[in-house]
Order: sequence, then structure tokens, then C-alpha cells
Amino acid sequence: MNEAAQTLDGWYSLHLLYNVDWSSLRLLESEEVNKMVTELQSFLERQEEVHQKNEGSYSFYNITGQKADLILWMLRPTIDELNTLELEFNKLAISDFLIPSYSYVSVIELSNYLAKDSDEDPYQNEHVRKRLYPEVPKSRYICFYPMDKRREGNDNWYMLDMEKRRELMYSHGMIGRGYAGKVRQFITGSVGLDEYEWGVTLFSDDMIQFKKLIYEMRFDEVSARYGEFGDFFVGVNLPAEELPAFFM
Amino acid sequence: MNEAAQTLDGWYSLHLLYNVDWSSLRLLESEEVNKMVTELQSFLERQEEVHQKNEGSYSFYNITGQKADLILWMLRPTIDELNTLELEFNKLAISDFLIPSYSYVSVIELSNYLAKDSDEDPYQNEHVRKRLYPEVPKSRYICFYPMDKRREGNDNWYMLDMEKRRELMYSHGMIGRGYAGKVRQFITGSVGLDEYEWGVTLFSDDMIQFKKLIYEMRFDEVSARYGEFGDFFVGVNLPAEELPAFFM
Amino acid sequence: MNEAAQTLDGWYSLHLLYNVDWSSLRLLESEEVNKMVTELQSFLERQEEVHQKNEGSYSFYNITGQKADLILWMLRPTIDELNTLELEFNKLAISDFLIPSYSYVSVIELSNYLAKDSDEDPYQNEHVRKRLYPEVPKSRYICFYPMDKRREGNDNWYMLDMEKRRELMYSHGMIGRGYAGKVRQFITGSVGLDEYEWGVTLFSDDMIQFKKLIYEMRFDEVSARYGEFGDFFVGVNLPAEELPAFFM
Amino acid sequence: MNEAAQTLDGWYSLHLLYNVDWSSLRLLESEEVNKMVTELQSFLERQEEVHQKNEGSYSFYNITGQKADLILWMLRPTIDELNTLELEFNKLAISDFLIPSYSYVSVIELSNYLAKDSDEDPYQNEHVRKRLYPEVPKSRYICFYPMDKRREGNDNWYMLDMEKRRELMYSHGMIGRGYAGKVRQFITGSVGLDEYEWGVTLFSDDMIQFKKLIYEMRFDEVSARYGEFGDFFVGVNLPAEELPAFFM
Amino acid sequence: MNEAAQTLDGWYSLHLLYNVDWSSLRLLESEEVNKMVTELQSFLERQEEVHQKNEGSYSFYNITGQKADLILWMLRPTIDELNTLELEFNKLAISDFLIPSYSYVSVIELSNYLAKDSDEDPYQNEHVRKRLYPEVPKSRYICFYPMDKRREGNDNWYMLDMEKRRELMYSHGMIGRGYAGKVRQFITGSVGLDEYEWGVTLFSDDMIQFKKLIYEMRFDEVSARYGEFGDFFVGVNLPAEELPAFFM
Repeated sequence: MNEAAQTLDGWYSLHLLYNVDWSSLRLLESEEVNKMVTELQSFLERQEEVHQKNEGSYSFYNITGQKADLILWMLRPTIDELNTLELEFNKLAISDFLIPSYSYVSVIELSNYLAKDSDEDPYQNEHVRKRLYPEVPKSRYICFYPMDKRREGNDNWYMLDMEKRRELMYSHGMIGRGYAGKVRQFITGSVGLDEYEWGVTLFSDDMIQFKKLIYEMRFDEVSARYGEFGDFFVGVNLPAEELPAFFM
Repeated sequence: MNEAAQTLDGWYSLHLLYNVDWSSLRLLESEEVNKMVTELQSFLERQEEVHQKNEGSYSFYNITGQKADLILWMLRPTIDELNTLELEFNKLAISDFLIPSYSYVSVIELSNYLAKDSDEDPYQNEHVRKRLYPEVPKSRYICFYPMDKRREGNDNWYMLDMEKRRELMYSHGMIGRGYAGKVRQFITGSVGLDEYEWGVTLFSDDMIQFKKLIYEMRFDEVSARYGEFGDFFVGVNLPAEELPAFFM
Repeated sequence: MNEAAQTLDGWYSLHLLYNVDWSSLRLLESEEVNKMVTELQSFLERQEEVHQKNEGSYSFYNITGQKADLILWMLRPTIDELNTLELEFNKLAISDFLIPSYSYVSVIELSNYLAKDSDEDPYQNEHVRKRLYPEVPKSRYICFYPMDKRREGNDNWYMLDMEKRRELMYSHGMIGRGYAGKVRQFITGSVGLDEYEWGVTLFSDDMIQFKKLIYEMRFDEVSARYGEFGDFFVGVNLPAEELPAFFM
Repeated sequence: MNEAAQTLDGWYSLHLLYNVDWSSLRLLESEEVNKMVTELQSFLERQEEVHQKNEGSYSFYNITGQKADLILWMLRPTIDELNTLELEFNKLAISDFLIPSYSYVSVIELSNYLAKDSDEDPYQNEHVRKRLYPEVPKSRYICFYPMDKRREGNDNWYMLDMEKRRELMYSHGMIGRGYAGKVRQFITGSVGLDEYEWGVTLFSDDMIQFKKLIYEMRFDEVSARYGEFGDFFVGVNLPAEELPAFFM
Repeated sequence: MNEAAQTLDGWYSLHLLYNVDWSSLRLLESEEVNKMVTELQSFLERQEEVHQKNEGSYSFYNITGQKADLILWMLRPTIDELNTLELEFNKLAISDFLIPSYSYVSVIELSNYLAKDSDEDPYQNEHVRKRLYPEVPKSRYICFYPMDKRREGNDNWYMLDMEKRRELMYSHGMIGRGYAGKVRQFITGSVGLDEYEWGVTLFSDDMIQFKKLIYEMRFDEVSARYGEFGDFFVGVNLPAEELPAFFM
């Protein structure tokens, strides 16, 4: 296989975003809403159990603005499990009051640009495994966006040679390192799986760090010349125990 | 006819994608849903019979993510049959609970780039016939996406001469061959029939192979400079016997 | 007037595309549907009468795929008549079950690229008149798409001189002639009238000819460098007598 | 102020386009429709009175095709009046059966490209005032479209110097003059007010003149290299007295 | 951190735009509407109190045209507060009759292009603080639009060096200064937070000044070559006491 195209692939990933249909929800008795919220909490508890056993992971946040109200991010070893979880979620009673707003299918990915030469099987490397099968943090804020590498005229990422791309990605990675401890970053690859080529999911306890990180990167050649960005979704963590207050 | 534009055309092709209206479906008695599912199963059985007789073929998968829940792909010798099947499908009771999300009209196509010179009528060649009138496999996963060849500034596929295009397609084809036994690929041509120029439908028992194949190809000049991609839809096979569990 | 911009303009043209709201239609008694179908048939009969008297023309086809179910194409000497016909169609009972999906306003157009020098008034030439006020055929298949000539960087059709455009259109026209007897082509101009600059409406008894013609043309410089295409709609003729079977 | 950016600004302008919800309208008793139509007629009469006193102007046309059914164009000395009129229109009973399809906020504008040097205050010039505060004609046909001047690579209107722009606009204006007596043209500026930079509203008693004028202009460098066009809406005058026949 | 990417960040910002569902609203008794309006007024009073204490700020305007009817702009020290306010607004009874049309998440931003060298902590500078935590005026008119800096071919803002960008921004700023006293301008940064990179919110007592300012800037290289603009929304101030007349 073309060296340029080698990636390490970990858990499958599914981002599901929904808007709440507040008008219809308001028509229900609070008892009914309570029942639905309890069912949703128990769905999230099962996610938490899987997360605890490191057989997958998940996030649940309240998105700011009208593009979505909720984002549910789930990671699992197979796409089949994600498919089943999506169906299960669609069949929760609360789903009658959730309007799909965006979704993203991808897989946790480590690029080979920063790889060291080694005979070791990277899938056996503990450090690599922790990144391929990660514990998603419960930071206060989330930021999710999909992106492409540009292929236009003289700005065609895929026509650059491996050395040039490695060099550019190295400098790009250096900016990211400057945010170590402030922002945690998860890259999921979606070439062949969804409309963009990558999904980026960031976590921080200080939202302004998302803006600082991404703005600083925008002056870096990788983003400046080669980055094409989809929409950005930011939100605040929504713990299961706050769901009754959220929905009622 | 212009040599460049010669293709071999096989069965007509119709991709139909739908979202399920779960909220409305939930309002029905399970008996009613049962009846509708049985009717849909019998529609799929008729597809299977035609497939068995090699008078056409079909696929039925559960799409992951919110862009669609179901994809029905049907192949037939005439567009009239597909037109009639679409009407028949629209009149199934279950269709009241299916919301059209995307469709694609095309025809199974073999390009002439890899053709050998020969006096033989290719439509009589058994190997060619198997590709023009194919048995679609029931692999665990599907990947469907439409695409164009770019016509922009210096990256204009249609202004390249035949020799250059043949050379580029040869190298492109070599990547595909590396996935023999892992991914089966069906190309349908849609110039003049639908919004993109080609539809690509892939099957595999290992979803990560879709990503590996398409990512590797993206560094190939044909994709890097000349490929324009529509949205990507991936999903998991949904056998007729699993329909009751899916819908209820 | 600028020679480049001279065209011969014939009948006004209105393409109306609709999706059928099958779910709502299914709620009606078959008697009610029957009445609505009869009313629609009588609307189409009036179109046929006008067509017979050569005071206009029309087509009615069943579109394949989800973009539309029906296309009604009407040609008349004035836009006022088309406007009135659209209003009349909107007031048919069946229209409560038709959802507008796309429409196109244009006028039958002959370009001056292939014009011969002559003192004759072309509007009095019988051959020209037959093309400006045409009898639309009832072929088995239709293909409709809107298009623009590109105006981008070095590929700007409207900055080419008349001689160059004439030369390119001549070669383009030669491809079309190769399909004489297989495909009938109607060009309607829509500069200033609708979102694209031209509408192309093709008829054939062999749908694959649409693909062959348009694919061959795509390698021609006029399309390759200067063609920008909207969506493509293809369908099968739907004679008035088949309407009961279609709607019920 | 930068000379290039000087314009003369007249009345504020609001284009409102609507589709009729025929299905819902049909459910009403004709008496009810009558009442709503009478109320709408009286709204239009008030527009006519303002027009007669030259304190504003307006148009009301029936758009051809599915993009809209009605266009209401109103001109007034302040945006506040237009804002109030829009609210008033939204509260007419008929508005329950009108679905907003497009709107445009702008202001009647005369560019300074053709201005003569003079010490006179142009706002006191009677000829200029007639164009800034115009009486909109009740011609048989309307054509409305928004547009931008292009800012792309080598085709960047706003990077041209004033002399070059003046020269190009002069030649552009000459084409327009060729249609004097056939087409009346109103330019409204919308930089900072709506999504495009200008709105063009044309009136004629011969619809084909719209096409001839705009097609001829398209070969002119101003349009060919620098024009970016939004959608085009054409329609037929709908006098208040024809409203009962239109709606019933 | 890269000098180029340094900004001063103040209050978080949330623009919420809504259309009124007039048809549904009309079905209510005026008493019910009154109650809802009173509740909305009390929500706005709470905004005013926060504004008076300079713990945040807000605006409420009536948008002209069909893109939206209302814009609510809120500024607060944390995104959490804005998130809570959005949820609170969604739970107002009137929200059942408001349809979300657009929203924007950003943060008040001062760029470093015009910064003076100094040892002072800018966040302690009173002048800077007034701009980072501003009192939004209650001018008669609002204009809001999002924008990007272009990254295309030779027009790539992010590939310019700091000196060049500073120089261009200086000249850009000079145009803005020419409108001092006429237009007040608030820049909010949204890199990493929403789909565009900046939101611009302008206030004036003379709407034509928005057009003059933005048109003049368009000839400035920063806008001409590097500005990419989203949609523009303009409107008229809607004081709480006018809400009953507005909604009834």
C-alpha cells in the first residue's frame, strides 16, 4: 500500500446531533416527560458502563445556538454496534421530540506522518492503543467540526509528496502541542464514510482555548492553504442528572 | 463515435434512500406494523427471485447516521422496470412511514480505458457480461457515493487526451486491484441521467476497507486532481428476516 | 444589436415538475381519486387539442427517482397563456396531492451560430418555423436539464469572439447530428427568465442514447471547458389512459 | 469619501415574494376567500394612493413557475415605513395562505459612473429626483433578479481603478439605452442590506425584451467577466380587480 | 504563541434570529397573546437589568424582509450563561410561535493589528475594557453579518505576513473611522465557534450609513480581495413597550 495512505484505525465513531422540539414537548404532562427522561438517563448509564469497561466511550453535550440542541458522540469497536445504538436511540420515547440536525460517521485515526520507524506492531503499543481506543473526557466544553484537505489548482494537498506533507504536519502538530493540558483533541477519519475527510472533536474546560487553538492554526500553511472546514458546533457538558431540568 | 466516449452499458440502476418516520410508526399497533413488514418482505422476496434468475439484482441495507436509514438498490434490463418498481415501492403501506432522502438513476458501465483491441463483440464476452449484468453480493457492508470528473482551469479531465486518461485510469485501477477479495466495486454511469457523472457502490465484509481503498486512491492523480465527490453513505446489511426487529 | 446575441425566439416554455404525496392520496376513497384523475385527463386532453391544432404543444412524463414523479412541459405563443395554464393546473383537485419540485421558464430558441447569410426573414422560413413552433414528440423517454455557459478565469465563453464560438458550436452540433433519428433535442433559452441560461429537453425511444450523446459531448470543448450543468431529470412517457393505474 | 463609492440613494425598497398555499385555500368557503381578497385589495388601494401622491410606489405581479406565485414590490422614503408595511401585510387574513419564498431589502441607487462634474446638488436636480423617487410603471411584465460584481482572482471588479470601471459601465449603459422605450430598469443597491449587492427590477410590455437585453449584456465585459447573478423571477401584472379570479 | 494570532477576547456573544409563525399566533385569544408578550417583556427587562449593571448586554430588533422577523443579541462573561439564556428563551410561551432562522456563537474580539507596544496588561486598560465588555447602544437600526477572510489561490489572507496584514487593516480601519459618530461597530470572533470567522454587528440612527460604510470598504483591498461575506440582516429597534402592537 501507498505509504502516504497508511493510517492506524481504532474505534468506529458516530456523532449524532439533534434539535429539541420544545413546542411539542410542552404539550406533555410533566410525568410523561419524567418517564422519557428516566429512559434517556438509563440509555446514558449504559454508555457510561461501557466507557468504564473501556469497551467504547461517549459524550453528551448541550450545543449552543440553533444548529442543534444536543450532541451524542459514541465510540465502539464495530460499526454494527454503532448502528444498533443509533436504532436503539431512535426508539427511545424522547426521540419523538428530537429532530435530527447532523450526523457523522468516522473512525478514530492516527496518521502516519509523525510515526517513528520501528519493527513494532503499533496496534500492540500501549501508548498508541490509548489513542486508538480512548477514554473521552467529561470536560466542560466540546467543539466538533468536519474538514477536508483542499484539492484546488496549486493548493492540492494530495499532490504534495510525502516529505512535504510530513514537514507541514509536523509544524501543525507543534501548534497543537502548545495547547497540551488545555485542549484534548480527537481526530476521526471519514474518507469513504461521510461527506468530509476528517472529524475533529475537541474538549476543554475553557471555551476560549478552542478559538485560540484554531485561530493560531489557521495561519499555519496546512490550514491556511489546505484546510476546508465544515460547520463548527460548540456546547456545554450535560450530565445525566441535569436532564430533568433541561427538558422541563 | 468519439473513441473517448465509448462505454459498455449493462443493467439500468436505481438507488433509493429513505429515512424512517419513527414517531409516526410508533403510533401504530404492532399488528399493523407486522402487516406492513410482511408486505415489504414479500416485495424483497420478489427482488430475490429476480436476482436468483439473474434477470436483475438488488441490495437492501441499513444506513448509519441521519442522512438515511435504508438504501434499496435495484438493477434491471430496462428503466421501465425500475420505474414500475419505484411506483410499486411507493405504494407499499410501509412507504407512508418512509421519507425519501436521496435517489440515483444510472446504468452499469464498463469504461473503455482498459479495453483490449479485439474483433470480438464485448457484449458476447462471458467475462464482460458478468460485469454488465452482475450478481450483487450480500456482503455485510455497503458504501455508495456519486462522483464527477473535474473540469476546472488546469484540472480538466475532459480536455486530456485519450492516452493520458488511459494511463491515469490504469494506475487508478491498479490500486483497486490491491483490494481484490476485500472490496467489490460496481460503477454505474449517470452522465445525462442524474446530477453526478458516476455512482460507485462498494461491498465488503470489513468496513475499514472502504476507507483504506478510497483514501489510498485519493493520493492517485485521478482522484487528487480530477475527482469531485458527492456525499458518502455507508450501512449494514439488513436481511428480510431482521425487518420485524428493525421496525418494531 | 450585437451580432453575438441574436437568437430566434419561438414559443414560450414552462416545465413543471411535481412529487406525488402518496401518503395523503392513499387516504382517499378510490371514487374520489377517480374523479380527480378524470379531471386531470381532461386537462391533458385540452393540451392535446391545442397540440393538434399546432397552437402549442406539451409533454407529460413519469420521472424516475425521488427528485420528482411527474413532469408537465407546456409550450405556448405567450407567457400569459402559460401563466394561466399553471394557475389552472394548480386549481385541479389532484394538485392538492402534488408537491412542486422544480420549474423552468424559457422560450424555444435557435441560435445564430449556424445561420446562413440571407435576406430572407427567418421567421417566414418554413423549416425555421417548424423548429420555433415545434410538435413535441411522444417518445418513450424524456431527459430534461438546465445549463449555463461558463464564465470563469480562462474559461469564459462570453469573452470568446464570435468566430471562435461559431467554430466550437459547429463541432458541437456535429456530435448532435450523429444522433439524428435517435434523439430529438429542443433548446429553450432562459437568460433573464430563470436561474440557468438554457434548458435542454431530449426525447428518445432508447434511454441509453441520452447518456451516449451527453457523454460524447462532454469531451467536446464546448461542454468540457464551457458547460455548467444543473440537475438531470429522466422519465418514461405517461399517457393519459395510464393515469388511473399510476395514481391508484 | 472614496470617489468610487459615491452613489445617490433614493427610496428604500422591499421585494416580497410568496407562494400561495392552494390546498389550504381550497378548504375555505368562497365567502371567506372573498373577504380576504377584499382586504388585500384595500391594502393595494392604499399602496396606489401613496403612489398617486408620489410618496412611494409599488408593484404587484403574478410570478410564473414554482419559485413564487406573487411578488409585491414597495418603495418608501424610510425603511421604517417598509418594515411597518411588511408587518401589516403579514397580518392580512390572506397571509395565512401565503408562504414566504424570497425577499429583498435595498434602496433605489444611481451610480456615480456616469455623473457629470457639476456644483449642483444632484438631490435638487429634477431629472435625478425622478429616478431616485420613481413612479413604477404598470407594464404587463416584470423581471427581478439580484446580482453581485465578481471578486475572484483576475476578475475582481473592486480592484479595478475608477477610470476602468467608468469605461466599462459606459459601454454597459449603451446597451441598456438600445432598449429605451422597450424596457424600464430600476437599480436598487443592497450592499450591507441583503445577500447580493444590487437588485435589478425590469418592466416591459414584451417579455422577450428581458431576454434580449440581458443576453446582449452578457457578452459585455461588465457582465461576462464581473457579473454574478442570483435567481431570476418573471411574471405578469396582476391588477387588484383580477384578484378574485386569481384566488378562487 | 504566534503573534499573528493574538486577539483580546471579551464577552461571549449569541445572536438568535427567529421568524414569527403569524398563522398559528392568529388562532389565539388576545388574552393569551397578552400573557405571552408580558412574559417576553419580563425576559427583556431582566436583560436590561444585567445591561444596566454592565454584567452583560443585549439588543432586540425587528428584522426587515422574510429571512427573520426578530433578532436577539446577548453578551455575557461566559458561554454557560448564554447557553442557559437560550434555554430559558426556548421555554418562553411565545417561543412556540417563533421559528429559529439563524444563530451565531462568537466572542467580542479586538485584533492585535492596531495594538501599541506596551508593558501594560491590556485587560486592565479602561479603554480596552470598554470595548471588550461594551454597552450595546439602542440605536434605531441594526445590521448583522458574518464574514470570512479569503484563502483562495493568490488571495490568501492567512498566507500574508503580519506586516502586510497590519498595513491593510490600518487602511481598512481608517475607512471605519470616517463613520465615527454615524455607525457603531462590534466585531465578534467565531473561529472555531461557528461557521464564519467573524460576526459584524453595526448600529446607526441612519440606515443608509450601513450601505455607505460597507460599500466604501468593498473597494478597500481587505474586502475587495480578502472578504467573504455571509448574509446581511438589517432591522429596526423593537422596544419592549411596542411588543403588544407588534404581536397583535
